[in-house]
Amino acid sequence: MMLKSFIQVHPDSHFPIQNLPYGVFKREPASQPRPGVAIGDYVLDLSLLASAALFDGPFLSNSDCFNQPNLNKFLELGRPAWTEARMTLQKLLSAEESILRDNASLKEKALMPMSQVQMLLPIAIGDYSDFFASKHHAYNCGVMFRGPENAINPNWFHIPIAYHGRASSIVISGTDVIRPRGQGHPAGNSLPYFGPSRKLDFELEMATVVGPGNDLGKPVDVNEAANHIFGLVLMNDWSARDIQAWEYVPLGPFLGKSFATTLSPWIVTLDALEQFALEAPQQNPTPLPYLAEKKSQNYDISLQASIIPAGQKDAHVITRSNFRHLYWTITQQLAHQTINGCNLRPGDLLGTGTISGPEPDSYGCLLELSWNGQKPLSLGGTSRTFLEDGDEVIFTGYCKGDGYNVGFGTCSGKILPSLP
Amino acid sequence: MMLKSFIQVHPDSHFPIQNLPYGVFKREPASQPRPGVAIGDYVLDLSLLASAALFDGPFLSNSDCFNQPNLNKFLELGRPAWTEARMTLQKLLSAEESILRDNASLKEKALMPMSQVQMLLPIAIGDYSDFFASKHHAYNCGVMFRGPENAINPNWFHIPIAYHGRASSIVISGTDVIRPRGQGHPAGNSLPYFGPSRKLDFELEMATVVGPGNDLGKPVDVNEAANHIFGLVLMNDWSARDIQAWEYVPLGPFLGKSFATTLSPWIVTLDALEQFALEAPQQNPTPLPYLAEKKSQNYDISLQASIIPAGQKDAHVITRSNFRHLYWTITQQLAHQTINGCNLRPGDLLGTGTISGPEPDSYGCLLELSWNGQKPLSLGGTSRTFLEDGDEVIFTGYCKGDGYNVGFGTCSGKILPSLP
Ligand SMILES: [Ca+2]
Ligand SMILES: [Ca+2]
Ligand SMILES: [Mg+2]
Ligand SMILES: [Mg+2]
Ligand code: NI
Repeated sequence: MMLKSFIQVHPDSHFPIQNLPYGVFKREPASQPRPGVAIGDYVLDLSLLASAALFDGPFLSNSDCFNQPNLNKFLELGRPAWTEARMTLQKLLSAEESILRDNASLKEKALMPMSQVQMLLPIAIGDYSDFFASKHHAYNCGVMFRGPENAINPNWFHIPIAYHGRASSIVISGTDVIRPRGQGHPAGNSLPYFGPSRKLDFELEMATVVGPGNDLGKPVDVNEAANHIFGLVLMNDWSARDIQAWEYVPLGPFLGKSFATTLSPWIVTLDALEQFALEAPQQNPTPLPYLAEKKSQNYDISLQASIIPAGQKDAHVITRSNFRHLYWTITQQLAHQTINGCNLRPGDLLGTGTISGPEPDSYGCLLELSWNGQKPLSLGGTSRTFLEDGDEVIFTGYCKGDGYNVGFGTCSGKILPSLP
Repeated sequence: MMLKSFIQVHPDSHFPIQNLPYGVFKREPASQPRPGVAIGDYVLDLSLLASAALFDGPFLSNSDCFNQPNLNKFLELGRPAWTEARMTLQKLLSAEESILRDNASLKEKALMPMSQVQMLLPIAIGDYSDFFASKHHAYNCGVMFRGPENAINPNWFHIPIAYHGRASSIVISGTDVIRPRGQGHPAGNSLPYFGPSRKLDFELEMATVVGPGNDLGKPVDVNEAANHIFGLVLMNDWSARDIQAWEYVPLGPFLGKSFATTLSPWIVTLDALEQFALEAPQQNPTPLPYLAEKKSQNYDISLQASIIPAGQKDAHVITRSNFRHLYWTITQQLAHQTINGCNLRPGDLLGTGTISGPEPDSYGCLLELSWNGQKPLSLGGTSRTFLEDGDEVIFTGYCKGDGYNVGFGTCSGKILPSLP
């Protein structure tokens, strides 16, 4: 029989008792940030459950990990603590269990309508890397800039290519994004210009949230990598294509990316995603032994990006993709990141890179969707090549279960005009 | 008359009363890390001076910034507090001033022999960027890989090129560095190999330590940038050239750099360096207005790198360079980093990139010094193209004053063999 909560959860909700994603919220502007889980339209305050001694298992009963302004301490505890928390919460929230269900005063305090709290970045992010793990995205970018003959650089098939991103400018869903200014360079020998980006784009991504880290000099084995992964979030790696194109040789993207990166507030755990696992695409050539996994899996997560064009009210879906399209798995990404001895810390973030599918209506960014501005997209009586001031971009993603969804909620941001 | 301390400082010391660089130390393995300044062969414990109410100026008298495990809180206070601290410390340490000089019990507690303390990373580093600001270095790398015709990519003369580095693997001078393993790729169509790096290198750099940050979306004006800079350290950006060469297209260096980056323990303030300022090299073409400075200055800092080859005792100087060779100034680097709206936070680090001078004996890394392995260097009866296991690399740097030095001490690290 399907697990049910005493809390009413609409069948379309992203947050049934089967999900229980973690976030950090504030009740009021001056409140302390506290960890919570999403259940239906509510946020459950974990600090209050902990104070009520309801986390009574061996890993959590003596921990103050839920009395913190972020989830890092909980992430550091690792899978045994995460499993214990999930079992405890599913029990406390289940329709059959009376402890919380019949405690009106605790329920009143611990369950808040999601619409009444402010969500914050759930983690303190020490380092953020961004991978390039979708073959369709790599191919499309290559065709645009180098032609179909050499679309994908030879190293791509051997290395989960990535770059170090900027941690300071990672923001929570709902934060406005100011159009960046910077240098662009038209074709030919002309001089660079300076001004507001003329090719502002989004990138539809997800990101791995790291749990326990590893010591400097001690790589994580690819078959152990899943134990270092707490869960996934949606991520919008906002990108200024004109700035990026002029700056990226030879050291990679820098200011074209570092002005903002948006995360969805709820971290969906690998435990909740496990039933949606499926085999990752065949890799050819066979990866080097340090990347060869016993079990190579992706998750069947439907992703979609919409735009509410400036001055309009309705969102228009402009792409539908799926996490399953990733060529390099998140466990391969993590193992690669550490193979040189690089240390991970709890709360580190590993972006997947733009998740494009094989079909033109599954491409994960405007660069690909508009083919570098050559094919405007029509939406709501207007059209777009790149983002305009006032546009709002909204990502969503979910897994379809039998009678429920395990979803990520939304990841959104609105473009504000550049500084004068 | 020259300012003198009651503490005997040898004329060759890097740490006279004119310098007073900041670091963080531990008295014993189990002690709390505490901020200190270097004076001669001693470390002065700032937390004890603060407890004794000797920081009595308006910015510091009510601050707990010296009762912290790192300098971030002091850095955040900005230049008025830094100037106040410097004036207070120069007064307390001067030969004429009795407060500390004649307080035997406080002196006994607050002044520790440098040889008896352990130095730690002085800052919590949120983000670390590494620039590419030496024209000689950019030219040499370009000639080696693309020939003299197109040695320097056209964007280099318009943009202080940089990449995001890895913050987690930044370590303090004296930390051993394990040779990284990774993928390399010989020329031609062969398959990549996996194993210990065969081209392990150092990069002779300095790095800017950021003081007050800026809000996301609010760039720092280039003419205000110096107020966001607390000081400089020596930095060794260890680099695995074979890993880097195979991975870096198109997203830049990643695992070829992220296994370790070493900092010197003492942050020399811009205030101490000011008397060694000199005009930066002429820039042609003229930079865009956001990079055009009213006063464009470098510092006359002599730099040198030595190697103690494995199994030997003596250090052999292999290069002598100078900070003055930088084409892009540190204020231009900082302004560029923020022009897209990217926010800096106190304790952020901006590496200069390898500081090569114009002459072959002033090149800042083995890639250039051995011309990618073609010209072995002889040292101490042996020779090197790249680093071997057991080699120790030692950087030092100082400004020559009239009767004293303002120096950085050393930045060192020894190579340990790869994991099996
Ligand atoms: Ca990306
Ligand atoms: Ca470097
Ligand atoms: Mg971004
Ligand atoms: Mg490095
Ligand atoms: Ni696919």
